This record gives sequence, structure tokens and C-alpha cells, in this order.
Amino acid sequence: MNLIILFESDFTHFDIAQLEDRRFQHITSIHKPEIGQNLKVGLLNGQIGYGEVLKLDSSSVTLRVSLERNPPQALPLTLLLGLPRPKMLKRVLQTVSTMGVKELYLINSYRVDKSYWGSPVLEKQINEHLLLGLEQAGDTVMPNIHLRKRFKPFVEDELPAISQGSRSLVAHPYNASTCPETANIKTTLAIGPEGGFIDYEVEKLNQCGFDSIHIGERILRVETAVPALLSRLFPV
Amino acid sequence: MNLIILFESDFTHFDIAQLEDRRFQHITSIHKPEIGQNLKVGLLNGQIGYGEVLKLDSSSVTLRVSLERNPPQALPLTLLLGLPRPKMLKRVLQTVSTMGVKELYLINSYRVDKSYWGSPVLEKQINEHLLLGLEQAGDTVMPNIHLRKRFKPFVEDELPAISQGSRSLVAHPYNASTCPETANIKTTLAIGPEGGFIDYEVEKLNQCGFDSIHIGERILRVETAVPALLSRLFPV
Repeated sequence: MNLIILFESDFTHFDIAQLEDRRFQHITSIHKPEIGQNLKVGLLNGQIGYGEVLKLDSSSVTLRVSLERNPPQALPLTLLLGLPRPKMLKRVLQTVSTMGVKELYLINSYRVDKSYWGSPVLEKQINEHLLLGLEQAGDTVMPNIHLRKRFKPFVEDELPAISQGSRSLVAHPYNASTCPETANIKTTLAIGPEGGFIDYEVEKLNQCGFDSIHIGERILRVETAVPALLSRLFPV
Repeated sequence: MNLIILFESDFTHFDIAQLEDRRFQHITSIHKPEIGQNLKVGLLNGQIGYGEVLKLDSSSVTLRVSLERNPPQALPLTLLLGLPRPKMLKRVLQTVSTMGVKELYLINSYRVDKSYWGSPVLEKQINEHLLLGLEQAGDTVMPNIHLRKRFKPFVEDELPAISQGSRSLVAHPYNASTCPETANIKTTLAIGPEGGFIDYEVEKLNQCGFDSIHIGERILRVETAVPALLSRLFPV
């Protein structure tokens, strides 16, 4: 937790916030602050600044909050991801959130096991894992997650509008170009599930204007491919 | 398992290998091959090629092995990593192995919990996780892992010889330059533990010729920072 994220509901007065949950636990066990000490805080979907510790008792911490600067810049990226298996999904959600992706489509694909769509992670824990990612990065802006359970209608009917005006890329190690290293261009990037997109799906994406790219002959797990590709596509 | 890795001990004759363990399970449950079918195989620390299925029964598969090409190129990198906590260590070992690192030093640091050095992962499972990484990547060459339980003697007495003739970098988000994007230069890269290196440690590394670099203002978990940094430093 490199940033303590505050919610509107934490505020008891104009600039006074009171925390009682795992953030309180984290503050008392890790920061162990003195009264008057400043902690780095951010308002969900808002600015970042400091919270001065006004009061600390056995069940809550009270902060005077002062917000002063914007969160880190978002990536100019819409990410399409073949829905990963639940255990990997947790980590991928955190990674995506940490790295500054704000639009994520979790999509179906031939190699996505149907059972994944019924996972409790997907139904109840998405925001929790995204929040962990924001706390890690020092960001406040919650990503938007879109679920698309049918590949063909999504690619044919919806994707052209989503990817319009962006460079559109599909990470696919066969018959592909080297991943471009150009800077902060608006991008739509599709990454397949474990085992990759099948040929039909790559063809559909190619028809929709997506160029196949690779980042070398090694085959990476999705959770490794995501940071490797984003880091390559969006150099600082 | 994108590559079935064979050991010398699998060979019953000159080019005939018999598999009975989890590789046999994987072949029968995932590949479900016919007799005569070719499977992608590689010899540990050797070449990659094909194994023709000669025989398949309820407990083993017999392959005629033909090796023909070299594994993917290794990264020209020596990686120094503050020892991660055991759960993260497993994933980091796989990632490092998948991405082609061949020299990894797991080192102590102020923020490495002493208990991590006693983890069963470190004592018994290192090779298992490295092997999973090779199978994922399609590589055969086992990385060399070095454990260094004392930071100062390592940096003062051993590191100068290790990093000699390489560009030497420490990933540290403060007072740092942007990560360079130059291509395949021999490199030594140090990445701290969770919470990062302390100032004293960064100073020691700087004194040893390591330049501080960052890849943006977002703070990444170690398992995300590794692929992000390697992908940036070694573009294909």
C-alpha cells in the first residue's frame, strides 16, 4: 500500500476523514505514525496529497486531508484480454491497474474455459483487486472493466468503434512484426488467453485493422506478457 | 508446457526416450497424440527438436528424439534481486527463467525479512520453478542461481568483478534517469525487494558504478517490475 486511498464516505467533515478498516490496520502496523505526522493519501478518482494524523485510538485513525496534485497519467490504451483463469485474473487485474490501464475488456475466446465466466473473482472481487493495484502504483483512478462473453459479435459490432483512431495491435507470436516502440500513441491492444487466440480469431482481429506483433520468440504467460508489452509500447 | 524438456536420464537408447512422470501426464491429457505424431521437445541445456511418438501405454510414452536447432538466445544480463517473499519468489523464478535470464543473484537487503532465507522454496524448489519457466518460454538452458546472504561483502568484494565491462543499473525510482532503451548490451541490473533498497544500499551500488534508473512514477511490484524492465532494456 504505497498510497492510502480515501472514499467520499470516509469524510466526517469537510476535510476530516476517519478510517476503521484494513487501511487503519495498515497504518497502525506499518506506518505507526505519531500525532501530527503526514501520510500519503489520495481520493478515489481524485487528487493525491497528505493526511495529517489528528487522532489515533484502538479502532480508528482520524486524518486532516489536504489534496494537491493529480494522480499519475493514464496509459492511452484500451486493453482487450482473453479472460484468464481466476487465479491469474486476480494478479492480472492488479497489474493492469498498477500500470495505468483505464479501459479493460475481458473477452471470450475459443481457449477460454467456460467455467471462468462463473468465477467469484469476476462477480465480486474485481474492484478489490483493482484497488490493490492502485494502492501499489500510487494512483487513484479506478479502471473501467467491460465483460464481453461472445467474441464474434464483440469484434464485428463493437470493436470498430472502440479501436477507431488508435493504432490497433494483437500480440500474437506467429506471422507478426516486432512490437513498435513509438511513444504515447492512442492504442488498442489485444492479448489472447493462455494458449493464444486461434487462427480464426486472429483473422477476425486482422480484418478489424489489428496488426499482429510479437516481442520475441519466447512464449510468455499472460501476467508476464502484459507488463512486458505495456512497458515496450509506452516508454517513459 | 510449450516445450517438453528431456533429461539425459530419460534416454533408454541412443535417440529413444521414455517418459513416465508429469510430462507423460501432460502429453496424454493435453496433446493426446497418435502414434507417429511429433511433439516439440528439447534436451535440458541442449538443443530443441521433435520427439516422434513410438509407443504409448497407460504409464509411459516412448519417443524417438531428433534435435536440430539451438534454444532462444539468452539475455546478456546478470540480474541482482533483493530476495522476495516465498510466494512471490516462485513466480519471479518462473518469470526470470521464461524471459531468458541466465545469471540471477538473490541478495540480502535491509528490507528482506530474515525468515525468507529459510523458505522451503529456496532450499528445495528453485529448479522446479526455473524448469516451469523454461517449459513456458520454449527454452532449455537452466539459469544459474546464486544466493548472497550478506549485502555489504557481496557489493564490496564480489560485485565489481561481476559487473565489470557491463552497463550497471539499479532500478530505483528516486533521483534516477529514465531507463535506457539501447539494445543488446551486456548489463548488470539490480532490483530491490518490496519497499525498495534503502538509501545506504543505493549509495553502495552507485559507488560500485551502478546508475539509478526508473521506468515512470508508478511503483511496481517486483514480479511486474522484472518483465517491465527487461522488456524495456532488451527490445527485440
